[in-house]
Amino acid sequence: MPEKIKYDIDELLDKRQYAKLKDILGHMNEADIVELFETLYGDNFDEEREFLILYRLLPKNLAAEVFSFMNHDMQEHLINAFTDKELREILSKSFIDDTVDLVEEMPANVVARILRNSSTGARRAINDILKYPKDSAGSIMTIEYVNIHKDMTVIEAFDKIRRVGLNKETIYTCYVTENRRLIGFVTVKDLFMAEESDIIGDIMETNIICAETNEDREKVAAMFRKYDFLAIPVVDTDYRLVGIVTFDDAMDVIQDENTEDVSKMYAMTPMEDSYFRTGILRHAGNRIIWLLILMVSMTITGVITMNYENAFAAVPLLVSFMPMIMDTGGNCSSQSSTLIIRGMALDEIRFSDFFKVVFKEFRISLIISAVLALINGVRIYLMYGHSLALSATIAVSIIATVVMSKLIGAALPMLAKKCRLDPAIMAAPLLATIVDLCSIVLYFNIASAILNL
Amino acid sequence: MPEKIKYDIDELLDKRQYAKLKDILGHMNEADIVELFETLYGDNFDEEREFLILYRLLPKNLAAEVFSFMNHDMQEHLINAFTDKELREILSKSFIDDTVDLVEEMPANVVARILRNSSTGARRAINDILKYPKDSAGSIMTIEYVNIHKDMTVIEAFDKIRRVGLNKETIYTCYVTENRRLIGFVTVKDLFMAEESDIIGDIMETNIICAETNEDREKVAAMFRKYDFLAIPVVDTDYRLVGIVTFDDAMDVIQDENTEDVSKMYAMTPMEDSYFRTGILRHAGNRIIWLLILMVSMTITGVITMNYENAFAAVPLLVSFMPMIMDTGGNCSSQSSTLIIRGMALDEIRFSDFFKVVFKEFRISLIISAVLALINGVRIYLMYGHSLALSATIAVSIIATVVMSKLIGAALPMLAKKCRLDPAIMAAPLLATIVDLCSIVLYFNIASAILNL
Repeated sequence: MPEKIKYDIDELLDKRQYAKLKDILGHMNEADIVELFETLYGDNFDEEREFLILYRLLPKNLAAEVFSFMNHDMQEHLINAFTDKELREILSKSFIDDTVDLVEEMPANVVARILRNSSTGARRAINDILKYPKDSAGSIMTIEYVNIHKDMTVIEAFDKIRRVGLNKETIYTCYVTENRRLIGFVTVKDLFMAEESDIIGDIMETNIICAETNEDREKVAAMFRKYDFLAIPVVDTDYRLVGIVTFDDAMDVIQDENTEDVSKMYAMTPMEDSYFRTGILRHAGNRIIWLLILMVSMTITGVITMNYENAFAAVPLLVSFMPMIMDTGGNCSSQSSTLIIRGMALDEIRFSDFFKVVFKEFRISLIISAVLALINGVRIYLMYGHSLALSATIAVSIIATVVMSKLIGAALPMLAKKCRLDPAIMAAPLLATIVDLCSIVLYFNIASAILNL
Repeated sequence: MPEKIKYDIDELLDKRQYAKLKDILGHMNEADIVELFETLYGDNFDEEREFLILYRLLPKNLAAEVFSFMNHDMQEHLINAFTDKELREILSKSFIDDTVDLVEEMPANVVARILRNSSTGARRAINDILKYPKDSAGSIMTIEYVNIHKDMTVIEAFDKIRRVGLNKETIYTCYVTENRRLIGFVTVKDLFMAEESDIIGDIMETNIICAETNEDREKVAAMFRKYDFLAIPVVDTDYRLVGIVTFDDAMDVIQDENTEDVSKMYAMTPMEDSYFRTGILRHAGNRIIWLLILMVSMTITGVITMNYENAFAAVPLLVSFMPMIMDTGGNCSSQSSTLIIRGMALDEIRFSDFFKVVFKEFRISLIISAVLALINGVRIYLMYGHSLALSATIAVSIIATVVMSKLIGAALPMLAKKCRLDPAIMAAPLLATIVDLCSIVLYFNIASAILNL
């Protein structure tokens, strides 16, 4: 669809048919409008004037929603083009969590303008939220929730929702507070199913699932997965309701954390921004630190390899099996570590399962290594002049390497977690160099023993 | 909390204080009750009788919800213990998507009992959904949505929601159909903001975002991320409304697909179940296929290594740098491939960006390789008797390997996607063996040239 619409929009812009344009845009979904802008203008805003014309054709409420869906570059560009009046208008229609995002991402001069054009209440709320630690529940919450009283009737609650609902991020869960403390909640579905004269205090759910402001945002996202809620209330240490986190933010957190885990597992510092918006120097920086650290351990592997110079001088063929032994060890260990890291992230595996996991991996490694050793033993026997000793060397090395790799691959991430390190850093690359080192030592020692070198 | 509650529950069970137990359970959240059962009985149901007693103490509506949160083992165990009457009761309160899940996972005899105890309508719906391809929108949808008519007034719509809402998975978005075709939708928020006498046809949103039954479920999940909807309608090829997908199912899909991607990236067939519930033979099977495939390519690497026997026979020191060159190549390529695969999964990178990406990775690789080559060149010059030739060999090899690895790491996943293969299979392991092969060839050729072997 973007291609067709892009063409239409371009043509209408050329012909200055603004009424027609306004009508088309007014019927589009906000996320689609943002996608259209991205298709039309991409990362550069050379056709800046047209972009502003299009944006200003949007009805006011839609304009605010479109703004909240934009990436930071586009938002910064717009804010710089806005008059103070326009900026005030947008900010007054934005939810606090989106404004906090803006304040965190924009350069200082833009932030100053944003704060200057926010209401006193909003400014105070922004400052409060900014005080919470990064990645905490407090830092991703918003303060626009529907607040009701336990003495209200259902019909009064409906009236309150009607009155305040337009400016609330979700109206489908209403929170019941007493002296600012959270004492219960009702969903709109509960309200529908109740009699109009029922008292909120009688029908509200008092078994409250909530997050504390300092709770890790990943834990909050896990609560959404567990309970299937639309929103989770955030309370301070005195159990006073200070905000809510909504499911769409939780979905973003899940996505971010997954990306972050994958980066760490592949020995990279996680990116703050998307692939294209990150510069090449930043990219290089994110990757080089780990490569350097890994090189140190690889150097050790190299030095140790030289201890076996006599072995591979006597039987040069041994060198040609090095890649296979090392890579198989690396692959086996990363298979195990990945499953364990993923299992821990989803809370399926805990440290108390340590021996259960290690024993399970041990049995799995016996099956795998037996099959691999048999196949390779036979292959090498047939390919390299029926040498039983060489066959046995490789077969025994494979078994030793696979078992060792899987045990290390299973144990290290769990130990890392126990030491409060992020288990993801124990994934493939760091693990692979440790496993490489061990497999070379195993391999040449087994070879020396069997071949009498 | 589980420890404390576990203790209380155990004690109350011993003392047969069922009224007290009933009261405690009745006030717990359904997901927490399931967690409690898991803590109490784990994977074995030796204390089966107690488990059934506890479950039967739950109020009927809560019992149905608890059932829907359970894992398949627990569900199977319960169904086998249920009388037909109990089973009918649970099924009548379950949503069709959960029942379809059951039918897909249970053994044949249990499935037969489930179908026998479902209503005729449910049975037909289950069969319809089972016909959709695995991983399609149709296969994860449910049919319990609120359906209204465009001629209704807002107050009539509210009445309908009240009447049918209890049995609908979400009541917050109501779908407007005409001759079964989807013509619009209204959210409950829209209804609240409208006048009671407004006509649905006038206030409904007609710009409909929907999925087709055969759409990939991953695409549907991406729509939730893009639009922040609570539910997305599913239509057939004639635009007739056949079901909805709700956000909680989308969140599960995102989580599943992430796990699946991670598995594939580490050369494993994705698991169908959690780590512990998968047996060791299944685990071994999932992993061994890839290890065998990879061994073939490693064998080729080994054979090619033997071509350079003269080189490392003349300068045995060359062997000791093999692990470093190979591992650095592997790490560099997996860094690039991971970012590209992730970017494609999130739709930030498309095939049309091919040359942009490759050029970007090329520039990044120049920076990284220059730094690594310099550090290692100096180190080797100092460590190994001030041999400029050896230093140069390693430095040049590092540059060649890093550039080559990053280009292959960036290009292969995009080409895989173009060929309609899953890009994730091009991640670390398969890529690593290709890159290993190339880096060994580069390394020994550079060494032969510089050292005149």
